Amino acid sequence: MLNYGDLVFLWSPRKGDCFLLRLSKGAVQGSRLGQLRHDDFVGRTYGEVVQSHNGEVFALLRPTLGEYLRRVKRNTQIVFPKEAGFILMHLNVGPGSKIVECGTGSGSLTCAFAHFVGDHGHVYTYDRREEFSQLARRNAERWGVADRITFKVRSLDEGFDERDADAVFLDLPTPWDYIDKAREALAPGNRIGILVPTFNQIERTLDELRSQGFADPQVVEILLRYLKTDPRRLRPEDVMVGHTGYLIFASKCEPGLYDGLTSRSKGSEPEQPLEDIQEDCVD
Amino acid sequence: MLNYGDLVFLWSPRKGDCFLLRLSKGAVQGSRLGQLRHDDFVGRTYGEVVQSHNGEVFALLRPTLGEYLRRVKRNTQIVFPKEAGFILMHLNVGPGSKIVECGTGSGSLTCAFAHFVGDHGHVYTYDRREEFSQLARRNAERWGVADRITFKVRSLDEGFDERDADAVFLDLPTPWDYIDKAREALAPGNRIGILVPTFNQIERTLDELRSQGFADPQVVEILLRYLKTDPRRLRPEDVMVGHTGYLIFASKCEPGLYDGLTSRSKGSEPEQPLEDIQEDCVD
Amino acid sequence: MLNYGDLVFLWSPRKGDCFLLRLSKGAVQGSRLGQLRHDDFVGRTYGEVVQSHNGEVFALLRPTLGEYLRRVKRNTQIVFPKEAGFILMHLNVGPGSKIVECGTGSGSLTCAFAHFVGDHGHVYTYDRREEFSQLARRNAERWGVADRITFKVRSLDEGFDERDADAVFLDLPTPWDYIDKAREALAPGNRIGILVPTFNQIERTLDELRSQGFADPQVVEILLRYLKTDPRRLRPEDVMVGHTGYLIFASKCEPGLYDGLTSRSKGSEPEQPLEDIQEDCVD
Amino acid sequence: MLNYGDLVFLWSPRKGDCFLLRLSKGAVQGSRLGQLRHDDFVGRTYGEVVQSHNGEVFALLRPTLGEYLRRVKRNTQIVFPKEAGFILMHLNVGPGSKIVECGTGSGSLTCAFAHFVGDHGHVYTYDRREEFSQLARRNAERWGVADRITFKVRSLDEGFDERDADAVFLDLPTPWDYIDKAREALAPGNRIGILVPTFNQIERTLDELRSQGFADPQVVEILLRYLKTDPRRLRPEDVMVGHTGYLIFASKCEPGLYDGLTSRSKGSEPEQPLEDIQEDCVD
Repeated sequence: MLNYGDLVFLWSPRKGDCFLLRLSKGAVQGSRLGQLRHDDFVGRTYGEVVQSHNGEVFALLRPTLGEYLRRVKRNTQIVFPKEAGFILMHLNVGPGSKIVECGTGSGSLTCAFAHFVGDHGHVYTYDRREEFSQLARRNAERWGVADRITFKVRSLDEGFDERDADAVFLDLPTPWDYIDKAREALAPGNRIGILVPTFNQIERTLDELRSQGFADPQVVEILLRYLKTDPRRLRPEDVMVGHTGYLIFASKCEPGLYDGLTSRSKGSEPEQPLEDIQEDCVD
Repeated sequence: MLNYGDLVFLWSPRKGDCFLLRLSKGAVQGSRLGQLRHDDFVGRTYGEVVQSHNGEVFALLRPTLGEYLRRVKRNTQIVFPKEAGFILMHLNVGPGSKIVECGTGSGSLTCAFAHFVGDHGHVYTYDRREEFSQLARRNAERWGVADRITFKVRSLDEGFDERDADAVFLDLPTPWDYIDKAREALAPGNRIGILVPTFNQIERTLDELRSQGFADPQVVEILLRYLKTDPRRLRPEDVMVGHTGYLIFASKCEPGLYDGLTSRSKGSEPEQPLEDIQEDCVD
Repeated sequence: MLNYGDLVFLWSPRKGDCFLLRLSKGAVQGSRLGQLRHDDFVGRTYGEVVQSHNGEVFALLRPTLGEYLRRVKRNTQIVFPKEAGFILMHLNVGPGSKIVECGTGSGSLTCAFAHFVGDHGHVYTYDRREEFSQLARRNAERWGVADRITFKVRSLDEGFDERDADAVFLDLPTPWDYIDKAREALAPGNRIGILVPTFNQIERTLDELRSQGFADPQVVEILLRYLKTDPRRLRPEDVMVGHTGYLIFASKCEPGLYDGLTSRSKGSEPEQPLEDIQEDCVD
Repeated sequence: MLNYGDLVFLWSPRKGDCFLLRLSKGAVQGSRLGQLRHDDFVGRTYGEVVQSHNGEVFALLRPTLGEYLRRVKRNTQIVFPKEAGFILMHLNVGPGSKIVECGTGSGSLTCAFAHFVGDHGHVYTYDRREEFSQLARRNAERWGVADRITFKVRSLDEGFDERDADAVFLDLPTPWDYIDKAREALAPGNRIGILVPTFNQIERTLDELRSQGFADPQVVEILLRYLKTDPRRLRPEDVMVGHTGYLIFASKCEPGLYDGLTSRSKGSEPEQPLEDIQEDCVD
């Protein structure tokens, strides 16, 4: 049974309007389909059909992590679910993992990490801006994962306190300045993830990753296209997000990997990582 | 220290060639950079630089779940990491979750679910083809998550045995025939996920989801574009995967949601779900 | 030297704001960089630097066809330059061509055809809505190509008046109803083009094209992504057009092409038309 | 009636296989559906159904410019129809235009320009490699447009011979080295087009265009996705071209456009050029 403080997702079958609310005593959410009174939803359960003050019906649903993260309060560009999901799959993350991250920002990716590391894992997240750390903490509290996160408010100049992390993620304007710090924190053979919005940043980051001996660099962008859901008029949405950022991944390796290689031959033209081509499979 | 049975990922700095191996006594992997002898890697640790029989260097890395799933043995089209990561974010999945899935196929998504539900969660997966179930089990064993999975070899005609699942996923040629079974298994207010490759299947699936009262239907496709990683010649790869499938999501709701609505007004033109536009945020 | 009636394109180096104007005596275009007085631009020439009333500089440029068509007055969805350019390349269009089109709409594609068929070609365009025909005529006049176009205001129920057209283009809600009419108008072996926004329309159109013996059906969508042009922060625009429509092409062939073929074997899985793979080249 | 030297496009309804041939006496094209004997097609007309030596039917079709250009003999990366069509719309090209181009390459874009400028226009194309010029000339001859093209075999170091060109196009590894030459050749207020494959080249080209006072820079990439054409199983092709190149456009303007502007304010964040948003339209 739902109570104050719980998160609910309300969706209208008539307009497709939707709202993600944290139930608060006396609060009212305005909508073009009438007022949604929080008090009306206390004592109900997920999956019920509820109404606005003027009788418009809404489905009362359990919010997903993805839906929540798209709507967290933010004072920065956030890491979106499409990137967060891909990051989870391509770093060494899972229940019990120790993850290190900088910067915290609005805590979107921090929450995703904390959600999936479970009670036996932990996330250490750095940001030198106090107000960001506080916002991220609040966002994590509302999703119920704040106790799995240590928020540190300081710059990375002294490096990370952690060692042997299962994964390190950097979301900073100049990630190339901190790859040495990330390297110290990361367990050998494990993978770093980095998010940057511009081509110029990719270039400098790749240069630094190689000069620090990181192996298997990959750069990828993810495009998401929603479809309109009228079954008689199926088609993509007219407008889509054209760009959020580029994800860069690479693996920590001991020194010497590139010794004796000219820059031209440093794996500059890797095999095509086509997802649907099974060239070799593990046996 | 690595031992027989462990998974390793080998990457060449010279060619970008890479191999995901399960170390087996006496086994040898051929490559255009010389033989990779499994015995040579036992006793080493992730992050070391190793060599093929003729002295070509490789980085010895810890494989990620994403890399593993791209290379599992398969006798079906698999669910790829780009979709798996997105599914994780948009269903109610996390440490401790109970997930129900049909069909198992080669077990790619099954492994991803099992990885993230942890030791306190469980995955129930159905497939009527014995050989698929066995292949999927082997793939799960190699990733070390088979004990979190119950493999059931039967058709869905009698429905799922489970109730109150946190999430249900269907990867079947005719998902519309089994949405009633999925509905029985799913906890109220929770979300179903479905993967289909063709437009025609989207149409029939959306129709059935609505007639069964599911709320908040969404259809999305994910395009992934890798970049070539030469920092001096940054550009996308020449060839990319143009299509794997469409993901459909919807939430179980009690009956009556669409009563009195004409089909035309059934949320047919929902609000634009633009990822980077923050229209309302949870407070 | 520019005179009243001429088209000019004004672009600000400071804000990137731009305006496409037809010079009219006494007219003034407002802008956040000050008023642009048409009279100030008469007597100037393309390529000059001009000013708004308060001294903000603008480049005075010759508009391209693409820029013009993006800005024609419209009361319908228009065919955009990205599709128009592709259509030009994939139909039999060029100086001297005879093109037949239905419907006219706002005349965007009509103008593009008329531009490229030159003084020795002609475009016949049908629309049953008088106000659309008039709008399209005005748009064509302003680009200076109206004398190459015959505007017909009637439905297609009686079919086209023309025969042996070099190309036929249909931009209608139910193109499948008019493929027989298009077939009558088109010269043998030549190609029809069709634009539809939804998957469902593709399905019905392909069915009808095959049942009427059209050969070599192709369906394609074009995605355009603009980049931000700050050289220090190169990256794609945040938002892009996710969908305009699908282009369908097929070639008129005499009857009997599909005789004795089951529907399953009717070229349903053509060779991959990858643009950068040269499998066979003409010698 | 078709004769030797004519171009024909053959398409099989059974397999979707297709061939673009120039009919030559005695020539035979092998195919997995039997031999296609050129002599059999002489005297036939476009639109007929013809057969291979063993009775498999093919449609005998008129090739489009787009189909031809995808199959020209090449010893370079060519400009593909998807880019060529967009270029036509966004430069000042049409019947009667004077176009200047460097380098010729395999002549793909040269042919497209020559096709659309008609008998009263002309294309001047430069390449310092004799063998490229000859290949391009042969490709143009086969499409019947060679008499509209002047092929010049020399480097651009002395600049172009032409002045007041309606459009200039550069397809060179270092376009920034030749923008001054292009500027000399181009008529004021007109637009230059440039094709480059890498991010790094975009950066340097934009820098040079600005320092030479070019206005309204735009950078765009075009993604094309073909669909499989089975109406019962509509879906995108599994593999698509992920990258060919970036198109850069800008307009020649007299000096002084950027005077007094800091680099930061030089139109670095232009208005969103969304194709389907009609902010201002020409009146």
